[in-house]
Amino acid sequence: MTVTQQASAHGTERGLPRLSRTEMKAVGQVRKRGPLSRTAIAELLDTSRASVTSIVGNLMEMNVLTEVGHGKSDGGRRPRLLDINAGLGFIAGVDIGATSVDLALADFRGEILERRSDVADVRTAPDQLLNTINDMVSEMLNQHGADDSHLLGIGMGVPGPVHFPTGVLIRPPLMPAWEGFPIKDFLRDRFPNARPVVDNDVNIMALGEASVGGGVGLDNFFYIKIGTGIGCGIIVDGEIYRGSDGCAGDVGHICVDYNGPICHCGNAGCLEFMAAGPAMAEKARLAAKNGEGKLLAKALKDKDGQLTSVDVGEAAAAGDQAANKIIEESGRMIGGVLAGLVNFYNPKAIFIGGGVSNIGHQFLSTIRQATLRRATALSTRSLQIDYSKLGSDAGVHGAIWLAIENTFALA
Amino acid sequence: MTVTQQASAHGTERGLPRLSRTEMKAVGQVRKRGPLSRTAIAELLDTSRASVTSIVGNLMEMNVLTEVGHGKSDGGRRPRLLDINAGLGFIAGVDIGATSVDLALADFRGEILERRSDVADVRTAPDQLLNTINDMVSEMLNQHGADDSHLLGIGMGVPGPVHFPTGVLIRPPLMPAWEGFPIKDFLRDRFPNARPVVDNDVNIMALGEASVGGGVGLDNFFYIKIGTGIGCGIIVDGEIYRGSDGCAGDVGHICVDYNGPICHCGNAGCLEFMAAGPAMAEKARLAAKNGEGKLLAKALKDKDGQLTSVDVGEAAAAGDQAANKIIEESGRMIGGVLAGLVNFYNPKAIFIGGGVSNIGHQFLSTIRQATLRRATALSTRSLQIDYSKLGSDAGVHGAIWLAIENTFALA
Repeated sequence: MTVTQQASAHGTERGLPRLSRTEMKAVGQVRKRGPLSRTAIAELLDTSRASVTSIVGNLMEMNVLTEVGHGKSDGGRRPRLLDINAGLGFIAGVDIGATSVDLALADFRGEILERRSDVADVRTAPDQLLNTINDMVSEMLNQHGADDSHLLGIGMGVPGPVHFPTGVLIRPPLMPAWEGFPIKDFLRDRFPNARPVVDNDVNIMALGEASVGGGVGLDNFFYIKIGTGIGCGIIVDGEIYRGSDGCAGDVGHICVDYNGPICHCGNAGCLEFMAAGPAMAEKARLAAKNGEGKLLAKALKDKDGQLTSVDVGEAAAAGDQAANKIIEESGRMIGGVLAGLVNFYNPKAIFIGGGVSNIGHQFLSTIRQATLRRATALSTRSLQIDYSKLGSDAGVHGAIWLAIENTFALA
Repeated sequence: MTVTQQASAHGTERGLPRLSRTEMKAVGQVRKRGPLSRTAIAELLDTSRASVTSIVGNLMEMNVLTEVGHGKSDGGRRPRLLDINAGLGFIAGVDIGATSVDLALADFRGEILERRSDVADVRTAPDQLLNTINDMVSEMLNQHGADDSHLLGIGMGVPGPVHFPTGVLIRPPLMPAWEGFPIKDFLRDRFPNARPVVDNDVNIMALGEASVGGGVGLDNFFYIKIGTGIGCGIIVDGEIYRGSDGCAGDVGHICVDYNGPICHCGNAGCLEFMAAGPAMAEKARLAAKNGEGKLLAKALKDKDGQLTSVDVGEAAAAGDQAANKIIEESGRMIGGVLAGLVNFYNPKAIFIGGGVSNIGHQFLSTIRQATLRRATALSTRSLQIDYSKLGSDAGVHGAIWLAIENTFALA
C-alpha cells in the first residue's frame, strides 16, 4: 500500500486510533530506537514476550506498526523487525522566523516528502500569516494526492515565548499581534484530524538536532540560535528542557557588560544587543562610514546602505581587518557567556545555528576559543562546539519530530 | 518489632535481599510518595491489582514493605497503606566539609536517629579521616544496639569533583591527597553489608533540599553553597543533574570581571575568588586596617587578626558601613551570575546554603534584588530565592536519601 492510499484509508477514520498506555510505550520505543524485534520491545518494556505479541498484534491491526524485514539471528530464526508505519498519515512541520517561514510535509517516520520556504513578516496579523501557511500545507498535501483531512499532526515553531500547554504566545517582542492568539484552534479549524503543537523556535531547532542532527544519541547539549536575537534550546536526557515557566534558554539577555548600552529589554549590556546580527551590522556600517573597512565600505555602497552579518563575514574572509575585528568581538562575548553555561550545565555539545552561523568559520573558531579558555578543564574535556549539522532545516525537522511525538502521546 | 531487632534479624542475611525490577519500581513509588495503597501502586506501575498483590506480598515477606494503617475509603473498605519498613536496617549519611564533618544515622525511611558533628581537616590523608568517620558511625550504631554489620547503606558528600560511578575524586583542589582514593572500597571493608555511594557535597545538599527541605515537590531548582568556594547543585525532574562529565554546577568559576584578579584556577575575575567567604574576610581585614570600619577593626583585634564572613555580617548588623558595603558587593556579584543562570535554566527556586548563608538577611536580600533586576520578567515571575531550610543538615539528609536510593537500586 502506498503512503497515500494508507493515509486515505485512515483519514476517513478521523485521526489516529486511541492507544492504551502500554501500546503508546511500545510505539515510543520503536520511534526512538528504529526498527525493533518483539523480543527487544519486551525487554525495553520490561514485560513478557506473550504480552508484547498481543500489543504488537493490535498495533499492526491499527496500521500503527508494520513489519519491515528481519533482524540478526540470536541462534534461532531471524526475528521480524517492526517500525512505525510511515504511511499512517501526514505530518507538517512549520518553522516561523522573523522574516521567513520554512515548511515541510513528512511521513510518520519523520522522512520529509515536500519542502517549502517563503519570505514572511511575523509582524502581520496571525490569521493572515497562518492562512498563508495553511494554504502551503494544503498544496503540499495535494501534491501527494491527499487533502486537509489527511494531516494527522502539525508542529510549529514561533520566534517568541510560548506557554507550551496551550500553545499561546506570551508577550512576544517580535510579534506583539500574536499575544494570546489561539494558534492551535486556528490550525484545527483547517486540519480537523491534525493534533497541533506549538513551541518556541529554538526549542524546535534543538529537538531537530537531537532527532536527526548532530545531537543524535547525546543525552544533553544545547543549541544556540544567533540571528536577530540569541536564544538557546536545552536538551536534557534527550528531551526539551523548558524550565518552570517554559522560558528556559533565554540567554540573549545575559549581561556581558554592566556598563554596556541599554537593550530594548531595559537592562544594560545584554548579550544579544551587543553581539547578535544587528549589532554586527551596525558596527560594520560605522566602520565603513569612518573609513576603517574598505571592503565594508564597498559593500555598504553596493547594498544601498544596508549591511548584514553575512556581509561582514564576506568582507572578513576577503581580508577586511575591521570586519575581522567585529566578528572576533561578537565571538568573544558569546564564548564568554557560553563558558559560564558550560561550567553550570556541563553539556556534551553546543550546536550553533541561526542566520549568523552562515558567516564563516572564523566566527565559530572565535566562539570555541573563548569558551574553552574560560570554562573549567573538567567541563570541556569532551565538549564539542560546532555549527548545526541541519542548518536551516533544524526547525522543520524538530517541528515534525515534536508533532509525531505529540500525535502519539494524545492518541 | 523494634528497629534494632528488625535490623539484627536482617544483618545476619548480609544486606538486603535481591529485588526484581518490578519490585524495585514498587519500592521506588512508595519511597517517593509516602504510604500507598495496593491500588495506588498498581496505578502508578500501570499493572494489574492482582500482580501488585503478589509483588507486595513478596516485599512484605522480605521485610522491605510493611503495613502502616488505613487510607481513605473510596466507597468500599478502607485500603491498607504500605510504607518502607523503617526497621529494615541502618543508613549512614556523611557530609565532609573543608574543616568539619557532619554525620547522621537514619532508618530506611530517612528519619535521623543520631546526629554528630566534628571538626575535621580534609587535607589529612583519606584513610585517616575515613577511619575517624567510620569510628563515629560504629559508635552511633552501638548506641542503637547494632554493630557494623547492621549498616546497609552509606552516603557520603565530599568537597570536590567526583566521578560518580566509581565514587573517586578527580583533581580535587581542596583535598589533593584524595585523588583516586577508593573511598567505596574503604567503606565496604569496615561495613561489609553497606552499599556505599559518594557524590559531590553540593549535589548531596541539593538532594537533601529536594527530599526533606524547601525543594519538596519542586521539579527543578538549584542549591547554591557559598562558603570557601561557591558551588551549585542542580535538580531536574526531582533528580540530581550531573552533566556529561559529572561536573555540572561549577558556578564558582563563572567570570564576573574579565579584568578582575587572577583566581587559583588561572582565570581572571572568577565569582568565588571575588565574592565568597575568603574574599569578604580579606576585604574586611583591609577595611579594618585602613580605618574604614570601626566595628570590623574591633573584631579584628578581638580575634587576633582573623576575620570571617560571619564577623562581617555581625559588624554590618551593628551598623558598620564598610561591612555593609562588603556584603552588598558580594551579593550583587552573586546575584548577577544567578540572573544569567535563571534566564538560562528558569528554575522554580534557588536555595542558598553554606557558611556565608549564616551572615544575616541583608546578604540574601542583596542577592535577591540583583537577581530579579537582571533576569527576565518571565523567568522570575514565580521564582523563589531563599536560604536553605535545612541549614547545615542539608548534606546529611541528602547523603541519607541518596544512600537509600542506591541501596534499593542495587539490591
